[in-house]
Amino acid sequence: MGNCCNSFWNTPKNTDIRISLPAVCFVWQIAMIILFGVFVRYDEESDAHWAEFKKEHNITSDIDNDFYFRYPSFQDVHVMIFVGFGFLMTFLKRYSFGGVGFNFLIASFGLQWALLMQGWFHALDPTDGKIKIGVESIINADFCVAGCLIAYGACLGKVSPVQLMVLTLFGITLFAVEEYIILKLLHVRDSGGSMVIHTFGGYYGLAISWVLYRPNLQQSKRLNGSVYHSDVFAMIGTLFLWMYWPSFNSAISDHGDGQHRAAINTYLALASCVLSTFAISSLSAKKGKLDMVHIQNATLAGGVAMGTAAEFMITPYGSLIVGFLCGIISTFGYLVLTPFLEKRLKLQDTCGIHNLHAMPGVLGGVVGAITAATATESVYSHEGLINTFDFTGKYANRSPQTQGGYQAAGLCVALAFGLVGGAIVGFILKLPLWGDPADDNCFDDEVYWELPEDEESIPPILEYNNHFARKQPDTCLHNTN
Amino acid sequence: MGNCCNSFWNTPKNTDIRISLPAVCFVWQIAMIILFGVFVRYDEESDAHWAEFKKEHNITSDIDNDFYFRYPSFQDVHVMIFVGFGFLMTFLKRYSFGGVGFNFLIASFGLQWALLMQGWFHALDPTDGKIKIGVESIINADFCVAGCLIAYGACLGKVSPVQLMVLTLFGITLFAVEEYIILKLLHVRDSGGSMVIHTFGGYYGLAISWVLYRPNLQQSKRLNGSVYHSDVFAMIGTLFLWMYWPSFNSAISDHGDGQHRAAINTYLALASCVLSTFAISSLSAKKGKLDMVHIQNATLAGGVAMGTAAEFMITPYGSLIVGFLCGIISTFGYLVLTPFLEKRLKLQDTCGIHNLHAMPGVLGGVVGAITAATATESVYSHEGLINTFDFTGKYANRSPQTQGGYQAAGLCVALAFGLVGGAIVGFILKLPLWGDPADDNCFDDEVYWELPEDEESIPPILEYNNHFARKQPDTCLHNTN
Amino acid sequence: MGNCCNSFWNTPKNTDIRISLPAVCFVWQIAMIILFGVFVRYDEESDAHWAEFKKEHNITSDIDNDFYFRYPSFQDVHVMIFVGFGFLMTFLKRYSFGGVGFNFLIASFGLQWALLMQGWFHALDPTDGKIKIGVESIINADFCVAGCLIAYGACLGKVSPVQLMVLTLFGITLFAVEEYIILKLLHVRDSGGSMVIHTFGGYYGLAISWVLYRPNLQQSKRLNGSVYHSDVFAMIGTLFLWMYWPSFNSAISDHGDGQHRAAINTYLALASCVLSTFAISSLSAKKGKLDMVHIQNATLAGGVAMGTAAEFMITPYGSLIVGFLCGIISTFGYLVLTPFLEKRLKLQDTCGIHNLHAMPGVLGGVVGAITAATATESVYSHEGLINTFDFTGKYANRSPQTQGGYQAAGLCVALAFGLVGGAIVGFILKLPLWGDPADDNCFDDEVYWELPEDEESIPPILEYNNHFARKQPDTCLHNTN
Repeated sequence: MGNCCNSFWNTPKNTDIRISLPAVCFVWQIAMIILFGVFVRYDEESDAHWAEFKKEHNITSDIDNDFYFRYPSFQDVHVMIFVGFGFLMTFLKRYSFGGVGFNFLIASFGLQWALLMQGWFHALDPTDGKIKIGVESIINADFCVAGCLIAYGACLGKVSPVQLMVLTLFGITLFAVEEYIILKLLHVRDSGGSMVIHTFGGYYGLAISWVLYRPNLQQSKRLNGSVYHSDVFAMIGTLFLWMYWPSFNSAISDHGDGQHRAAINTYLALASCVLSTFAISSLSAKKGKLDMVHIQNATLAGGVAMGTAAEFMITPYGSLIVGFLCGIISTFGYLVLTPFLEKRLKLQDTCGIHNLHAMPGVLGGVVGAITAATATESVYSHEGLINTFDFTGKYANRSPQTQGGYQAAGLCVALAFGLVGGAIVGFILKLPLWGDPADDNCFDDEVYWELPEDEESIPPILEYNNHFARKQPDTCLHNTN
Repeated sequence: MGNCCNSFWNTPKNTDIRISLPAVCFVWQIAMIILFGVFVRYDEESDAHWAEFKKEHNITSDIDNDFYFRYPSFQDVHVMIFVGFGFLMTFLKRYSFGGVGFNFLIASFGLQWALLMQGWFHALDPTDGKIKIGVESIINADFCVAGCLIAYGACLGKVSPVQLMVLTLFGITLFAVEEYIILKLLHVRDSGGSMVIHTFGGYYGLAISWVLYRPNLQQSKRLNGSVYHSDVFAMIGTLFLWMYWPSFNSAISDHGDGQHRAAINTYLALASCVLSTFAISSLSAKKGKLDMVHIQNATLAGGVAMGTAAEFMITPYGSLIVGFLCGIISTFGYLVLTPFLEKRLKLQDTCGIHNLHAMPGVLGGVVGAITAATATESVYSHEGLINTFDFTGKYANRSPQTQGGYQAAGLCVALAFGLVGGAIVGFILKLPLWGDPADDNCFDDEVYWELPEDEESIPPILEYNNHFARKQPDTCLHNTN
Repeated sequence: MGNCCNSFWNTPKNTDIRISLPAVCFVWQIAMIILFGVFVRYDEESDAHWAEFKKEHNITSDIDNDFYFRYPSFQDVHVMIFVGFGFLMTFLKRYSFGGVGFNFLIASFGLQWALLMQGWFHALDPTDGKIKIGVESIINADFCVAGCLIAYGACLGKVSPVQLMVLTLFGITLFAVEEYIILKLLHVRDSGGSMVIHTFGGYYGLAISWVLYRPNLQQSKRLNGSVYHSDVFAMIGTLFLWMYWPSFNSAISDHGDGQHRAAINTYLALASCVLSTFAISSLSAKKGKLDMVHIQNATLAGGVAMGTAAEFMITPYGSLIVGFLCGIISTFGYLVLTPFLEKRLKLQDTCGIHNLHAMPGVLGGVVGAITAATATESVYSHEGLINTFDFTGKYANRSPQTQGGYQAAGLCVALAFGLVGGAIVGFILKLPLWGDPADDNCFDDEVYWELPEDEESIPPILEYNNHFARKQPDTCLHNTN
């Protein structure tokens, strides 16, 4: 709409993705098929040989198949990825299709690529060189995707779906490498991903958005906001993320007390986080009016910050403290830091992922390091300590204090990968190939979607009225701009 | 908006909550942290000592950790509390933020307070004076919160968030006491909470709303209704409540057949309830047109009424009968009783919780008492009877008939606590401290929320048109302010 | 509204369902209660005799109760039926109440009738002539209902709720018979129902819609489309179907590797399907703009097509291929086939179930037959082959090749039942008894629902403006019609 008018002073952007998007989807999907054909097989618990495997390993009941330990959590995580992240990004008044739709696209691609990348690093069977997948693999693939969806949050409304596919391809690749370094080489514990998912994903997205800075973004200001109903849609995303976060943080923890404790700790941190978010949101506004942006986002920071420590013996009140602080920090981030970053650092962060993922992720890494460093046998029991930190094999002699140091090192790795990787990928995305929208055309579904012809929500009777009313404003817009 | 005009004849209410809401949130959350620090620890199944516990108790597999029995049901219950109750209350055209948002706030506070209150009464470890929490505790905390959310339904749109926090503080406290009396002292079975949750919560909310009666509420009449999309949002709440109710009623039932049977019975009662609701709704209107209010609410009554008997051998057709009757009673409630209560008893019940929770809850208590009283060994088997009613320890000699009597007594306790407690809390909430909205300002998110500036759903082109149309009211606002 | 004007040349239809709908609901629900009373009892795992049963069968832990194997999947399936199908059908701008509401009604009736019908055919206990139900029964009842909800998709907006109840009554009956023939008599494997659910349901609905062809349906054209927000609502349905489809296809598979593998295969096929759908959708439009109809529907086709083969050793890349092809076929269906069918075959298919269920269902049947026919002991292991295809009892000597043939035969049975059954039921529904809407009144909630009085989403300030503006268009409409 407004596109034409601005084309006088803007070099018109070519947002036609009719060749590029199908090409990327087709070629990459076919590549996935070929690579899966070469590399991916079922693991022993999802293969029809399970009956034999059971006998060999004296497993008496099918219920001991890992499927029954993890599948309910997997489904919760799956909902977080597609409905949680997807609907959280529907809050813009005219970018709901893009928010939920592109989230759907890149997550679907990302999880396939993640199965391969993570498989090569973590699950390669040395006997036959194949990647063996089971329920834990698909949870990890969903986790890996989460990093890229976080990054999408910073770029929401300002990039094309082709750019998002590229962002995802590199994001997953970087993720798998940093995850390998952190979890395998450094032997760091991070079952809910404060570091590997949130810190990495957050700074990856922020670095990309920083490179893609648009000085004239205020030309799309009219669309960079919510309407009443779109805020309610976004609450669907918020709540499913919030409710299922205990599953997220416990999905790949140790069987038994590990999963049990991770769920409880996350549950508590999130509850506490809601209260401090409401408090700061109310305190910061005239008459104490609450801001939906805070409620939709900062309430989730407690879950992010428990991503590392949830499976540790952080104690219930420790979880409450972490959540409490996160709600405060995250809400202040939305109030103070986001405007500051945009003004001073030229960093446009549509969803405020710095406040929801990056900062709480770093905090979570620090909390995890401290909790690990202060772990004792009296609190964990001898066997409990070994199980929780996996002090076995060549790590049998590692002390909790040393572990704390490695945890902190892991955090630095995640940060470095996010910032450096994001900057590089940002420059790739800056190439004028990808069909991104013009500065006055951001946050607008019109660019990439066939929109319903009907004026939204206007009953037929009004349309007649609009028909005539519309003529004048169009000219008028030219004058007043 | 309309506020200004009415300020001539209304004492203006001060709805500024900038001090009170943050103060309540901060102080109470810090109190929670301190109390959790003093009292709350992990139980033996979520503690790192689990490995030792397993050995001591000859538990062979981690899958026997209670987590795997109850966590999927917990997550379903959790969704009911936050998305179910939250979205059910988005039906008002301009109170969706308050419906889903305040629900979020008070549930998050309530579950923490519930863990403490229920812990002191039910889960205090005599060896160290600590409350030990596990997955069953967090289900019970969510249950406890449900009672207060039901009460919120009666007050929806007419109270401030600070009042809701107070309502929740006292509600949880009362809940824990009545629950202790009913479940522990009277040894009553009520795993889905027809009595302890729905009867108590329903009458608690009704008593509060009765005390807070607003004779001039018709001044907000324009906002006390739905629009097309808000009704669809509310269906999200309805359906998640409806679908997950089998998990609600079976979440804390006995392992094995207890949970299995509770889920099936609830599933059947709910299905049956839908048909009788549609029938009465259609029968009561010109041309048989259905009313969304009935479909959103009365279809759930069958789940409420199965809260006590679901784990008993009520038989599949017994469940169908209960659901069938509940759909009829509840829909008639909306058609006849709600208007009657408002006119004659001065009782304003925004969501009609009398029809959805209070009456079906009482019915559920009665059904439970009858089903218990008529239980026999031939139906349950000797061991099954003992398991189902927990006729062990000092209750080893209680007969089903006696149990039926106690069940009825439990119902009376729930009723009494709801009515008396609600009346007292109502008077506390009437103090002019809490920032509640004026009579002409109810059901309006404007009072407590920063609303998106944009006119909702009006495409930009129309705004020009509005711009002029708005001028006159705008000036009017200036003058009358 | 427009109704009055058209009544000059249309025989006015009587859409009053005040007698018929309540009568159907009441009488059928009472019949259910009576039949359940005569026939339905708990099975040994949901009966209080479970404690005894455990001892007799040397079951050591309650966790071996089938409830814990299947309940999480059941809840996911349940969400698909009510929220998935329900919200997928809210995409029409003014039929969201009917979409989600009638789905709710007929599913609630259908699952009861399915428990009886499937019980008589599959679960009749020979010792006492009773149907014994457990968690697997209620999953199967939900599955059975899915067939009818698919059929509803073809008729959406064009039939009355009474017609839908009749459609469901016959649909469930036919389903139970075809399922008995396919699964029991032919011993075909179809755990996710590519054939018994999707092929049958798809062609059943298409045949009905073909018989009910409305030559003047373009009179309702103004309402046969979406608006912005209704498309976002529909995405709720899409995503819950998409995310939980792995549970759908694995819900009644074999314990252990069967369920595990079915979930993974479905997960992969669906991911792949998303990419090819986006590709074709973008390729087919000017400037590569995506169409929400494709994203909402064709992305699901991969799950449909894995309904038979998901539990087989189809391999991960095999699943990706199936999904990939399905996305292409289904999107082409929406682009080419639906308009063709409407023009040439006089087949009006509101939701495009031919593209989402019928074609992918057939494809899934074929894929299943091929995968079965090519199964070998080296891939499955000896015991694995027997378990997967249940080559026990009188089928102990059936070879995979023979099984492949039977699978193909099963597909034909499903097709035949759908087409013939649908045609017959279509003629029954054509009787002028059922209160269906006039041709110019389709896709309109006004016919069967009390709609909120307020103009939707128009803020009060605008209404003043509308009030006057409306006068002229009203007269104008009469003239221009």
